[in-house]
Amino acid sequence: MRAVQYLSVGGGPEVVEIPTPDPGPGQIRLEVTAAGLCHSDWFVMGLPAEQYAYGLPLTLGHEGVGVVDALGAGVTGVAEGDPVAVYGPWGCGLCHACARGAENYCPRAGSLGIAPPGLGAPGALAEHLIVDDVRHLVPLGDLDPVATVSLTDAGLTPYHAIVSSLSALPAGSTAVVIGAGGLGHVGIQILRAITGATVIALDISEEKLALAKDVGAHHALPSNAEAVDAIREMTGGVGAQAVFDFVGATPTLEIARQSVALDGVVQIVGIGGGVMTTGFFATPFGASVRAPYWGMRSELMEVLDLARAGAIHVEVERYGIEQAPEAYQRLHDGAVRGRAVVVP
Amino acid sequence: MRAVQYLSVGGGPEVVEIPTPDPGPGQIRLEVTAAGLCHSDWFVMGLPAEQYAYGLPLTLGHEGVGVVDALGAGVTGVAEGDPVAVYGPWGCGLCHACARGAENYCPRAGSLGIAPPGLGAPGALAEHLIVDDVRHLVPLGDLDPVATVSLTDAGLTPYHAIVSSLSALPAGSTAVVIGAGGLGHVGIQILRAITGATVIALDISEEKLALAKDVGAHHALPSNAEAVDAIREMTGGVGAQAVFDFVGATPTLEIARQSVALDGVVQIVGIGGGVMTTGFFATPFGASVRAPYWGMRSELMEVLDLARAGAIHVEVERYGIEQAPEAYQRLHDGAVRGRAVVVP
Amino acid sequence: MRAVQYLSVGGGPEVVEIPTPDPGPGQIRLEVTAAGLCHSDWFVMGLPAEQYAYGLPLTLGHEGVGVVDALGAGVTGVAEGDPVAVYGPWGCGLCHACARGAENYCPRAGSLGIAPPGLGAPGALAEHLIVDDVRHLVPLGDLDPVATVSLTDAGLTPYHAIVSSLSALPAGSTAVVIGAGGLGHVGIQILRAITGATVIALDISEEKLALAKDVGAHHALPSNAEAVDAIREMTGGVGAQAVFDFVGATPTLEIARQSVALDGVVQIVGIGGGVMTTGFFATPFGASVRAPYWGMRSELMEVLDLARAGAIHVEVERYGIEQAPEAYQRLHDGAVRGRAVVVP
Amino acid sequence: MRAVQYLSVGGGPEVVEIPTPDPGPGQIRLEVTAAGLCHSDWFVMGLPAEQYAYGLPLTLGHEGVGVVDALGAGVTGVAEGDPVAVYGPWGCGLCHACARGAENYCPRAGSLGIAPPGLGAPGALAEHLIVDDVRHLVPLGDLDPVATVSLTDAGLTPYHAIVSSLSALPAGSTAVVIGAGGLGHVGIQILRAITGATVIALDISEEKLALAKDVGAHHALPSNAEAVDAIREMTGGVGAQAVFDFVGATPTLEIARQSVALDGVVQIVGIGGGVMTTGFFATPFGASVRAPYWGMRSELMEVLDLARAGAIHVEVERYGIEQAPEAYQRLHDGAVRGRAVVVP
Repeated sequence: MRAVQYLSVGGGPEVVEIPTPDPGPGQIRLEVTAAGLCHSDWFVMGLPAEQYAYGLPLTLGHEGVGVVDALGAGVTGVAEGDPVAVYGPWGCGLCHACARGAENYCPRAGSLGIAPPGLGAPGALAEHLIVDDVRHLVPLGDLDPVATVSLTDAGLTPYHAIVSSLSALPAGSTAVVIGAGGLGHVGIQILRAITGATVIALDISEEKLALAKDVGAHHALPSNAEAVDAIREMTGGVGAQAVFDFVGATPTLEIARQSVALDGVVQIVGIGGGVMTTGFFATPFGASVRAPYWGMRSELMEVLDLARAGAIHVEVERYGIEQAPEAYQRLHDGAVRGRAVVVP
Repeated sequence: MRAVQYLSVGGGPEVVEIPTPDPGPGQIRLEVTAAGLCHSDWFVMGLPAEQYAYGLPLTLGHEGVGVVDALGAGVTGVAEGDPVAVYGPWGCGLCHACARGAENYCPRAGSLGIAPPGLGAPGALAEHLIVDDVRHLVPLGDLDPVATVSLTDAGLTPYHAIVSSLSALPAGSTAVVIGAGGLGHVGIQILRAITGATVIALDISEEKLALAKDVGAHHALPSNAEAVDAIREMTGGVGAQAVFDFVGATPTLEIARQSVALDGVVQIVGIGGGVMTTGFFATPFGASVRAPYWGMRSELMEVLDLARAGAIHVEVERYGIEQAPEAYQRLHDGAVRGRAVVVP
Repeated sequence: MRAVQYLSVGGGPEVVEIPTPDPGPGQIRLEVTAAGLCHSDWFVMGLPAEQYAYGLPLTLGHEGVGVVDALGAGVTGVAEGDPVAVYGPWGCGLCHACARGAENYCPRAGSLGIAPPGLGAPGALAEHLIVDDVRHLVPLGDLDPVATVSLTDAGLTPYHAIVSSLSALPAGSTAVVIGAGGLGHVGIQILRAITGATVIALDISEEKLALAKDVGAHHALPSNAEAVDAIREMTGGVGAQAVFDFVGATPTLEIARQSVALDGVVQIVGIGGGVMTTGFFATPFGASVRAPYWGMRSELMEVLDLARAGAIHVEVERYGIEQAPEAYQRLHDGAVRGRAVVVP
Repeated sequence: MRAVQYLSVGGGPEVVEIPTPDPGPGQIRLEVTAAGLCHSDWFVMGLPAEQYAYGLPLTLGHEGVGVVDALGAGVTGVAEGDPVAVYGPWGCGLCHACARGAENYCPRAGSLGIAPPGLGAPGALAEHLIVDDVRHLVPLGDLDPVATVSLTDAGLTPYHAIVSSLSALPAGSTAVVIGAGGLGHVGIQILRAITGATVIALDISEEKLALAKDVGAHHALPSNAEAVDAIREMTGGVGAQAVFDFVGATPTLEIARQSVALDGVVQIVGIGGGVMTTGFFATPFGASVRAPYWGMRSELMEVLDLARAGAIHVEVERYGIEQAPEAYQRLHDGAVRGRAVVVP
């Protein structure tokens, strides 16, 4: 089968022909119907050899949906032909975190060598994908694969950050979304769908501010030094009960720090290289700061239900598998509108 | 000043002239700008003498908004001319429940003789209203008094019931609203505004089912024996994670009992005379059943913020104070669309 | 191997010789080191043929611990020789409830024919037990099998009921435990270990009231009509924020109904044949009533951790497998102190 | 009356004679029965003139209990002779935070000039204290004033930090307490009283480690670089689900940062001058970092209930009002065992 692989440190993504894998006991093989490209793939491919820890060759793609096309021994609960989405942050399945479905916080995955598809295990940018456990599949039903695949990361990640902040976001509160890109524009829709909060979006791009308004932001402001004053004014001086920073760079984190309310929440979602100074003398009393990671298994189901109800959608560009390297380049160049999706 | 009073057990509401009260220390006098009429006033006026415990004469009206027009000694935090809404379920202010703002569950109010305005204390159906504590006022801001006054009960009560059920209502869950009348049609809007749940409304009136759809219900069904099967089918056999019964009569509670999911929630909001049999052999495993009462102080603020954001509104009919007895009669006859509001 | 089976409706438990099963793909075989007997086994064996739905022959025992002695194809995460406890309320593993580890509320288990060991699937009262999924095992570590096995039900069930009520049980609140038997005496210990609530235990037996005090109840009272007044007096008229009825009979439910505070919680844990009338005119405003079932996967881990920390223990009587029918009889006669445990 | 005042920037506390105040409308005068001294008073008195914002002269003391001895006009709910504790973090009483009893996070207090007694308003280190609102009093009942007064800050502050972390602290989790001094030794007791967590205490003083064990810590370790490895080892590599840093200095915050588990919580309680770097590349995925402030009104009631139940106590040294300056000096010198309390 064809697959998009990272073959050597410093090389780029390449389309190669590799043997089609067979599922072992307990495993499921999918025929991939759509796979998403993500900035974090570039992050991984940009690491120097001494920091690169994902194995070679690495089949890329941590966002995947497909149709079940072969079952390993002992698999029950799905049947050949079932359309499914892949829950990516695989954990050990046995610890306390995994028992609650929070495999994204499994403390044992690292030491056991368990890694998500496309980030250690063979990924979804291939004609077929092996999923290690039926519990890492969520029924897709009638959802369109291409329109949906990005939700497994670009939907689940903001959803988890927002749900983790719900107690700070009663009706009448204010949520700030910094960065209205791939994750941020979905985050705005999720906030509108599941909270009564007022949503203020910040971005440096006019086009993305327009997108933010289109998908439901009550206000959209340039992401600059005046933003803090504007947020304070809009909230009667109180600040935002929750700030979601989908950029995570030093300047955006500074806006987050200055905008958050007493007893509020900052969720750092973007891996933009920044960190935040926290504590007395730095952040408001009671304000918590946190960098969440991906999401829970039950949350992925909830995200797909939101899509099913028409409450959220992702803007996507569609590519064939041979075009994957080109799509990665466009992503890198900031030329993709929304998310790039490969259909093998 | 003129007031609408209940003067003797068995009599009806009457418009009378009484002295305008002066606020004592710590009290606030309002010039009433709108007062709401409620079915529960009829319930109170229908009680026989041996059960009637609200004092005579009783100035009616437990939904009120007004403008501050006189301050008792020591009152700070509001000024003459401020438009405010009255938080009605007054508690002692000092116990554990009151300290959290849950004055609606104050265990001491009864023994201390503390009662809500219109339900023991002089109510809002008068030109002026005495409020016992500045903490029972919530700023109204620019909200229209007539359009807003009903939210202090008909908005707060469903809001409290829904917020109490939030953990059962993640995105993708199903909420059933039984009764799309005064409280129910606001409940539907609240569910849409603050949850990602699918809302199924039930009613016996075609007109109210149409209203339910207008205000955001995903589905609207006749409230009859087939409703249970329909709900089960729509939810893949699972049932509804939360059922809000705004009727509370024996047949609607039976629908609630049969529709609720494992580990779900039934909130009995309507005082329709029914009770529910609960426990093994009666309700699904883990399903909780509860009759909530009115709401918390912070929740009233949140409800007004939802109105401010345009997320909820109440249908109202407007009357002068002299028309209050007639308006009560229309309410009793089921002839009022939405809520009846008196403007003194 | 030897097993204790229910062979025909109306018959009793019998020790039989059956083939030792082999684990299929994904399954695990345990050598059972301890299995617990439960009143609910008698309930099942007492059902008439038209209501009996557990299959025949039925190997009994839904409380089990053992040592892994054979692995089916594809099983990872445990190794032969590992001591483990069995999480009993098996669900489909794939639905929203199961994804959160709440397999005890899986809405699909019934229709899929999935049943707990000893309650449909072959149970733990045998020399060997087949567990269907490694995710239904929790490491036992150094815990003594005989002392621990009952916690998988008699510990997990009260734990789940209590954890579900935690928001009602801040420091200074009052919890009432009705019935200080097998589950109740563990419930008292759990309340003391994880809350700052005052614990009032009720029972009709002097001996059990003494046990209640021994395991940490602050107060122990006869379970009779005066109990309600006593609870009201001890709580300044407020009542108990949470009532756990481990009996579930009509008179105990009446005590629960009358003792619970405004906005409190009643958890009906015992299957004593009673039901509770709930709603306005029946229960205090805001008080919720619920019959929980068993517990969550992560909660079983927490229960075992409490045992590991020495915070809870179960009184047990020990029997050989040949004595199982006799032990059941003693259990039925009320002659067992604590729980009866079989060591095959 | 005599009072302990801070008269000029750079001066120390002095005992002075000032007029006994009378309560205005809505206010309550207490005869102070005990007042606590706190390190933060030294912090305030150490500020240079341009940063000092508490007014002069300032009557010190933000921990106070007393007996009601005069009521302003309109005060109800307390009577002369009632023993009460003062809830210190006064807010506006009217905003959303205050409506929930979280006056400690009132966003309006600063701009309205509302300040706690002893930190702007006249404090408790005097023979009499004016409390601005009856809602800032909590009944003391039979509790001993001298033994209890410190709980209004040194009990409430750790209690609030711990209750804010409860969802991270199920049975079987691990809590680390850094600093077993005035607040830390109460925090350990609270953790033992209301959670099933294992408590690891760290301190640099042998004596305080002994105290930590005395009051219930499961483990007590020197607070140094090896502590992190020890915590990781004790927790099977997972780390601590919650870390409470009662020191807040750079080295202790570094221990906190390295000890916290994935999805865990760091509460920075001590004002030791340090800050923590938070985010990807700095803290574990999902771990939140927060500097809480004092506590909620309902939480103070809960703390006093814990004391009433014998679950927590504070070590105190007792002084007369004339000895207050000397007591402050001993506090500053680290010579006080536990907390210093003045009895006017």
